[in-house]
Amino acid sequence: MVDIRNNNREMLPEPTLRRLPWYLAYISMLYSQNVEYVSSTQLSKALNIDSSQIAKDFSFLNIKGKTRIGYEVKVLERMLEDFLGFKKGHNAVMIGVGSLGAALIQDMGLSRYGLNIVAGFDINPNIVGTSICGIPIYDMSELKMRRPLLNAEIGIIAVPVDQAQLVADASVESGIKALWNFTPSRIKYSDNIVVQNTSIYSHLAVIYNRLDSQNKN
Amino acid sequence: MVDIRNNNREMLPEPTLRRLPWYLAYISMLYSQNVEYVSSTQLSKALNIDSSQIAKDFSFLNIKGKTRIGYEVKVLERMLEDFLGFKKGHNAVMIGVGSLGAALIQDMGLSRYGLNIVAGFDINPNIVGTSICGIPIYDMSELKMRRPLLNAEIGIIAVPVDQAQLVADASVESGIKALWNFTPSRIKYSDNIVVQNTSIYSHLAVIYNRLDSQNKN
Repeated sequence: MVDIRNNNREMLPEPTLRRLPWYLAYISMLYSQNVEYVSSTQLSKALNIDSSQIAKDFSFLNIKGKTRIGYEVKVLERMLEDFLGFKKGHNAVMIGVGSLGAALIQDMGLSRYGLNIVAGFDINPNIVGTSICGIPIYDMSELKMRRPLLNAEIGIIAVPVDQAQLVADASVESGIKALWNFTPSRIKYSDNIVVQNTSIYSHLAVIYNRLDSQNKN
Repeated sequence: MVDIRNNNREMLPEPTLRRLPWYLAYISMLYSQNVEYVSSTQLSKALNIDSSQIAKDFSFLNIKGKTRIGYEVKVLERMLEDFLGFKKGHNAVMIGVGSLGAALIQDMGLSRYGLNIVAGFDINPNIVGTSICGIPIYDMSELKMRRPLLNAEIGIIAVPVDQAQLVADASVESGIKALWNFTPSRIKYSDNIVVQNTSIYSHLAVIYNRLDSQNKN
């Protein structure tokens, strides 16, 4: 198998990257059902994504289907899994161990996707020094000292909105390379920092608005 | 104050809707700091959004700034809050009370954004009949019977990926009007159902890939 990781990773567009886990989820399901081949038409129908888009996304990973047969499910699953790195461990620290932070630490599902939350950091004296599911919670002031020992490159930000930029800056200063932002705050950052915003509240805004519109009709 | 909800809600584009909670978060912070006015330049700088985009987004809500002074923080906060409905309660049921589902039930932060999770549904006999933070967990087969009494229009989907479509269909059949999908599965649905996908795993895919690229350079 060609090492797709070296060839194409640099140029992979973000929308393609975001779709890959959807493909993997569906392909894994097919694999568990002992399905051997899947066509792009079938994928397109199941995932509601244009089949030409699917072929294009796969071509970024050098994955090619066979005429009339389609893609081999077993190979496709392994290639997507290898590429996405969900089987590889990635250490992360939780910045802010309030309600959401604690919930995310308890969500064992994340570790199935390669995310190991190895410590939490907070300023609340009632939380600092305790642990959640075996994950120690340290004082925020210790982040810079502890981060290298924890070998964590990912910082998950779940603090109150007015603290978001502050802790983001502190995280970057401590050596964090990627920020996963769960606050509704837009974090400013330099180009060499990876930032992903999971805007839970934005999704709620859309749901409420669309529901309201429907209820009026 | 004009009732903006009736005038413009129907035509509000989704990207605008998604940005509104970001504005609200920042405006609320300014309000708590006793700031009286904010200019679109200031907002643009703080949120990293083009100032013309901000003006356009606000115009959908009939919010107009004053020349040279900008927007009145107090009024802006109230208008955004009213519009977004975060102060209004919206009942929701959790479909799938595994690791993530249980974590979301425990996340009290969601209720601050108007989301009341009133019950959970699962098929696991070890969970059914118990409760989490006072929220009862029922058998999935009871969804259709219980949904109207729970007065819930929102279904939060946090089941294994191969169950996602199945429980989505059952939810819609029970009278659920909006699906908030936390699985990596793409759910198929009819036009009158509101669906929002919170692709946690897609964000992880982007983070891992970009980190890997950086570490190679």
